[in-house]
Amino acid sequence: MRHILIIGIGAGNPEHVTIQAINALNKADVLFIPTKGAKKTELAEVRREICARYVTRSDSRTVEFAVPVRQTEGRSYSGSVDDWHESIAAIYEALLLGELGEGQTGAFLVWGDPMLYDSTIRIVERVKGRGHVAFDFEVVPGITSLQALCASHRIPLNLVGKPVEVTTGRRLAESFPDKSETAVVMLDGEQAFQNIDDPDAEIYWGAYLGTPDEIVISGRLADVKEEILRVRAEARQRIGWIMDIYLLRKGADFDE
Amino acid sequence: MRHILIIGIGAGNPEHVTIQAINALNKADVLFIPTKGAKKTELAEVRREICARYVTRSDSRTVEFAVPVRQTEGRSYSGSVDDWHESIAAIYEALLLGELGEGQTGAFLVWGDPMLYDSTIRIVERVKGRGHVAFDFEVVPGITSLQALCASHRIPLNLVGKPVEVTTGRRLAESFPDKSETAVVMLDGEQAFQNIDDPDAEIYWGAYLGTPDEIVISGRLADVKEEILRVRAEARQRIGWIMDIYLLRKGADFDE
Repeated sequence: MRHILIIGIGAGNPEHVTIQAINALNKADVLFIPTKGAKKTELAEVRREICARYVTRSDSRTVEFAVPVRQTEGRSYSGSVDDWHESIAAIYEALLLGELGEGQTGAFLVWGDPMLYDSTIRIVERVKGRGHVAFDFEVVPGITSLQALCASHRIPLNLVGKPVEVTTGRRLAESFPDKSETAVVMLDGEQAFQNIDDPDAEIYWGAYLGTPDEIVISGRLADVKEEILRVRAEARQRIGWIMDIYLLRKGADFDE
Repeated sequence: MRHILIIGIGAGNPEHVTIQAINALNKADVLFIPTKGAKKTELAEVRREICARYVTRSDSRTVEFAVPVRQTEGRSYSGSVDDWHESIAAIYEALLLGELGEGQTGAFLVWGDPMLYDSTIRIVERVKGRGHVAFDFEVVPGITSLQALCASHRIPLNLVGKPVEVTTGRRLAESFPDKSETAVVMLDGEQAFQNIDDPDAEIYWGAYLGTPDEIVISGRLADVKEEILRVRAEARQRIGWIMDIYLLRKGADFDE
């Protein structure tokens, strides 16, 4: 029986790593590292630094593998993701069969936490379902960019006793401000916040959280919208890629 | 200028602690530890173990302080919390003035992450607003029970590309299943899930997450509701207190 560890390694700061994650990294015979486009070299650097800093056993191996690009043409969003997961599952299966001996342990390192807008868990379940390789697996939580965002802005996520919605750029219009007074937006390629037109909305935005390039901006959305768009475009141009996240909120702690 | 660190220490497993939190614990001259009722002795034990295991400087002090009980009689929910925070702010202010010298650093250790259903950040802001003691502060994120829940059940929090609502027992009826297909419930003293009557709802429940007493149950809500209520009542009786959390969900990953 092979054993798989799906390990959350935090949002970009090597110090986000937990003791549980460090111990898990050191249980792995093989560390599987996805290569996600040559542009995000700083992220690849952080991952290498995490392994160099915390992996103390000398007999484990690192195996890098390429992740295919999601094909969207002629497919619905769900269909596109479904096909993409199937092609990644085939890659995982080949890795487990080719790189991991019976009784060995392999680790997948995941940015943030494997539970939040990451598909490693469901792809591993899919590999299991294909039935060609037997294994069990464990999940180790990690600090997410959502937590790094709140820590850098020094704010609670929720207003007192109030709910919070975590959503995507594609779905923001359905959420804030009519459905949810607080919405956190991850995976937004379109800066959906620019279409929100509410005079009371506040935004807490952050990019490259936890890294030396971190930028945070907050304020009344109407006042800082243009600044965020400008700073974001400049940073993306300068660094070559961007990962950002934001929280939108209206109301206050003790509103009834 | 005094300096305050608000440090998330994870959900109950001492290995949830991050390297960033360990470094922060070791920057503190004084570690402020709330005593939250004698019954939760296991939690106090975990906190002591975290300090013993990770605090390597020998010249820091621990100061325990009592947290008042929230008064609810004759008050609205918001009014009750507001009054409670004010009385805790007065205690924090006295601690900063009495226990921390100018230029010293104090740390508040918070279960989970200070951003999620915890008021340490807003109480510290309140102390600042009172204007009797000058300080700056930083927040260090920590693993939350929500993350420990998903890791133990080995599930993603969200369905593919779908939103998630994080809410409280008091507000669950407004949320699931009509408003949100996935809802996570924290702070539920009334087991609000028992009032959800949806044949398609699934529940992922966990108590004492990350501790040796951890219990997890999952399944179709209609099938496991009674089991959860029974197991929860038995555990609460046996251990003397309970902290639990759950995720309710309907639908599947590739539903459109």
